[in-house]
Amino acid sequence: MELLCMQVQADFCGNIERIEKSAGSEASFKVDKWERKDHGGGGITCVLQDGKVFEKSGVGISVVVSKLNPKMQEAMRTRGHKLTPPNEGDTLPFSVVGVSCVTHPVNPHCPTIHYNYRYFEVETADGIEAWFGGGTDLTPAYINEEDIKHFHNTQKKACDRSGPGVYDRFKKWCDEYFVNTHRGPNGECRGVGGIFFDDVTGNFSEDKEGKPDYEAGFRHQMSCGSSICESFFPIIERRINSPFTKEEKEWQQIRRGRYVEFNLVHDRGTKFGFATPGVRIEAVLMSLPLTARWEYEHHPEEGTKEHEAVMIFQNPRNWV
Amino acid sequence: MELLCMQVQADFCGNIERIEKSAGSEASFKVDKWERKDHGGGGITCVLQDGKVFEKSGVGISVVVSKLNPKMQEAMRTRGHKLTPPNEGDTLPFSVVGVSCVTHPVNPHCPTIHYNYRYFEVETADGIEAWFGGGTDLTPAYINEEDIKHFHNTQKKACDRSGPGVYDRFKKWCDEYFVNTHRGPNGECRGVGGIFFDDVTGNFSEDKEGKPDYEAGFRHQMSCGSSICESFFPIIERRINSPFTKEEKEWQQIRRGRYVEFNLVHDRGTKFGFATPGVRIEAVLMSLPLTARWEYEHHPEEGTKEHEAVMIFQNPRNWV
Repeated sequence: MELLCMQVQADFCGNIERIEKSAGSEASFKVDKWERKDHGGGGITCVLQDGKVFEKSGVGISVVVSKLNPKMQEAMRTRGHKLTPPNEGDTLPFSVVGVSCVTHPVNPHCPTIHYNYRYFEVETADGIEAWFGGGTDLTPAYINEEDIKHFHNTQKKACDRSGPGVYDRFKKWCDEYFVNTHRGPNGECRGVGGIFFDDVTGNFSEDKEGKPDYEAGFRHQMSCGSSICESFFPIIERRINSPFTKEEKEWQQIRRGRYVEFNLVHDRGTKFGFATPGVRIEAVLMSLPLTARWEYEHHPEEGTKEHEAVMIFQNPRNWV
Repeated sequence: MELLCMQVQADFCGNIERIEKSAGSEASFKVDKWERKDHGGGGITCVLQDGKVFEKSGVGISVVVSKLNPKMQEAMRTRGHKLTPPNEGDTLPFSVVGVSCVTHPVNPHCPTIHYNYRYFEVETADGIEAWFGGGTDLTPAYINEEDIKHFHNTQKKACDRSGPGVYDRFKKWCDEYFVNTHRGPNGECRGVGGIFFDDVTGNFSEDKEGKPDYEAGFRHQMSCGSSICESFFPIIERRINSPFTKEEKEWQQIRRGRYVEFNLVHDRGTKFGFATPGVRIEAVLMSLPLTARWEYEHHPEEGTKEHEAVMIFQNPRNWV
């Protein structure tokens, strides 16, 4: 799993730097190796800022070896994990290894991408309890059907290798997870989705009682992880030179504000980061955009491209 | 209390518009009256955006009449309120009336101010349980001792009318509350503090068993509420024309990012807003700045004015 994470990170960063270079920019990733002080684990965080094409791109792999605190255990139990401690009140040792990335382009016609693939292992009285989680989702400021269909089709292809119906389940999960629930009675998705899943043991049948199949789980992570570049970069290369106005840039900034709201208020990964002692907080928050904007009561007029986007964020659609 | 809120709002907005006008700007407050759909209460939110002096200023008064949900009750009980329901599991009717404001100036040498004064009433089996909460705090990007001392001295004068030691207690409370606890092992205050208090019944003796004195509570709110303009505007008028560089503006944007972090992750008022059904979400989020910035691992060099500010945010000081 660590190898997969490093490969995904290397491929993605390589592509970003290649595109920056061909745009005549010298922006490159700053590589930051860190260890969790007085705790186990560490990571490699690569961040590129103020590029010509990419405003901010953060890609990180991390390994955390620690003990679950009561809040984490509670959260995981509500998601169906037994986590039986050897003695009542014991905190359980866990380790998690994962790769994650958020990339915010400069051009408002280029979408933001996020991905995160992780493997979680907890030592319980019943032995090791382990699962996979992750996903890849796209957040454009403007709706371009061609781009979104390409993205979802690539994600579907990656999921199809794990079995029939896997894409549909994980697509729905994504639409239900990345939601600013505080934004209106039905909430508002932060983007146009993709796939999301958690607590998956590699048994992709609907039968939840089935045995874990960690090999299949790893193959799934590999298939999804290696699909990212193909999902994202053709879109960037297509839109990289689209002209844009000051107003379009401002609309992108407003959408970035919503992105910040989701990440700070709802995101499970951010909450997990905040709850993990000794964690590198800058690595947790690298997902935040370089810049964002909040305007009071900004509602795009009907018939505009901005309004079209909001309608889709409020009513997730099938793209395949 | 509603009268006090309206007076504070009118005074503050009047000053803001006066300053904008004398700077040659036509920016004025947009007045937004709203009601909680299918619920009790409503409010008046006034927002000024993109002024010459003020990037964004939001001042709101609101009245919420509703029932405490289990999460709210739990939070209030952990803060010492009995909230005995007539029958087990009953949700309790409450009403809250308050005024709140966040104002972010354009010039990085002008600080951001926040204030909020509120009165809370719950109908319980034991009768009405009521309390006051509030505070005023200052968030500069740069440390200017003269300004901060003026601010704290004015706040002290307002608190002194409620009794000896009140300022000291509420100043400490403020330093302990407005903290980005996720930012480093000891956390980082969002600014240079001021006063903060909650669950106050108007009995200002240290004796917590003492009887409520709501008259004294109202007088305290009145004293603090009417001190805001004197606390803030002399600072603005002093710094309004201070020259600033692009780098200083960027530093202000980074501090705005921290402001967003506090408001979305920790602030009790935001959480209360998110948990209140039918609330006007834009009114809850009007505290967010127009623009903000996140740079990965931005640490000012020792000896710089930016570093001085961070040291003070990490180690609150006495200013009186």
